[in-house]
Amino acid sequence: MKTKRSYSTGQPAFLFDLDGTLIDSVYEHTLAWREALEEMGISLATVAIHRRIGMSGGMLAHAFEREAGKKLTSKEIEHLQTLHACAYKKRAGQVRPLPGAHDLLQELSNLGVPWAIATSGKKEDAKGPLTMLRLDPHIPVITRDDVKHAKPEPDLFLAAAAKLKFGLERCVVVGDSIWDLLAAQRAQMLGVGLLSGGFGENELERAGAYRVYRDPADLLAHLDEMGVRGRD
Amino acid sequence: MKTKRSYSTGQPAFLFDLDGTLIDSVYEHTLAWREALEEMGISLATVAIHRRIGMSGGMLAHAFEREAGKKLTSKEIEHLQTLHACAYKKRAGQVRPLPGAHDLLQELSNLGVPWAIATSGKKEDAKGPLTMLRLDPHIPVITRDDVKHAKPEPDLFLAAAAKLKFGLERCVVVGDSIWDLLAAQRAQMLGVGLLSGGFGENELERAGAYRVYRDPADLLAHLDEMGVRGRD
Repeated sequence: MKTKRSYSTGQPAFLFDLDGTLIDSVYEHTLAWREALEEMGISLATVAIHRRIGMSGGMLAHAFEREAGKKLTSKEIEHLQTLHACAYKKRAGQVRPLPGAHDLLQELSNLGVPWAIATSGKKEDAKGPLTMLRLDPHIPVITRDDVKHAKPEPDLFLAAAAKLKFGLERCVVVGDSIWDLLAAQRAQMLGVGLLSGGFGENELERAGAYRVYRDPADLLAHLDEMGVRGRD
Repeated sequence: MKTKRSYSTGQPAFLFDLDGTLIDSVYEHTLAWREALEEMGISLATVAIHRRIGMSGGMLAHAFEREAGKKLTSKEIEHLQTLHACAYKKRAGQVRPLPGAHDLLQELSNLGVPWAIATSGKKEDAKGPLTMLRLDPHIPVITRDDVKHAKPEPDLFLAAAAKLKFGLERCVVVGDSIWDLLAAQRAQMLGVGLLSGGFGENELERAGAYRVYRDPADLLAHLDEMGVRGRD
């Protein structure tokens, strides 16, 4: 896939996942899904839920169905998603931006490097995190509502690249889950993994990560490895 | 270390960690520590806290101090531990045994394979999980109160082996965190990792895991890899 790319000398563009990548919310989402599943009579180990975070809610529900060996109707899946939203809301007050998230985005803007947000979450759910990050309203934000399929399908990242008017080969996806990295591969983009969502380094590398960093602060310290050049 | 061991043909003995290994409580402990730290004005990424779970409370507090670059007095460390205990209590109602935990322990007992529990938690904190697992009262349980140093020091596992009257070379440590596996190495015991606490496979292997399984149910399906023989 990568061998066919044309070599690009310009600055890259960054497409950021939100939960677990810029916002420290994966553990809350995990426990909110567990609470919702338990209310539906589905009992799964917490880690099994954790490792599915980052997929679209619908795909996640299907994955849970499969793991629990229980079939849900589309009405039940909808109910599960509502239960999750309620359970997450109870926990949202404890959610914070990840170390360096704001500084990283600010530095990219300062350097004239374009970037966008591409999240599997719904527009409604992205509001809180976006406010927390104090984003400029002109920053492109692609959510679940803008595409037919969420991660690991490439649609979100393709839509974000189109919005930035950037070629795929110049886009770098930054995400904390294997679903981000699989979607990056399918979009023919470079994928960078962050450990801040709780996935292991090896899991991210196996899913195709070009580089893995601890959190946004660590990525900020290594922007040159992605071909970002300073103003000098 | 392993080459000097004498070859043993008898059944092994199993020394189990509790949280994340038999009980699905790591995510609750993680968020309880985060809440406690935040009350003390220490802000750390959730994953950084997660990766410290399994150490003794005191060592954990020192690790947090280091990561946050803030020195705590011994009184403050004590207060932090009290805050964590309170924050965990609020979440304890949602904690469940891990898939296969009860069946695994039952099967070992049925096969006449000795086993014990060795947890970095205090006796008081182990009560709930032990009740949940419906343990026979004669099963040896070593807690933080029984030893001078908890994991990654080997003391808990050495005390458990002594209680079972088993040679170290015949003991298999089962744990979900790298602290269990480092302690197993220091105790000259074989270490088996479980992914059920949220550590990655690679992290557990790097810490010396002989084998890594998904959860207690998966370990139960592979007991022969540890030299456990059936009754036939």
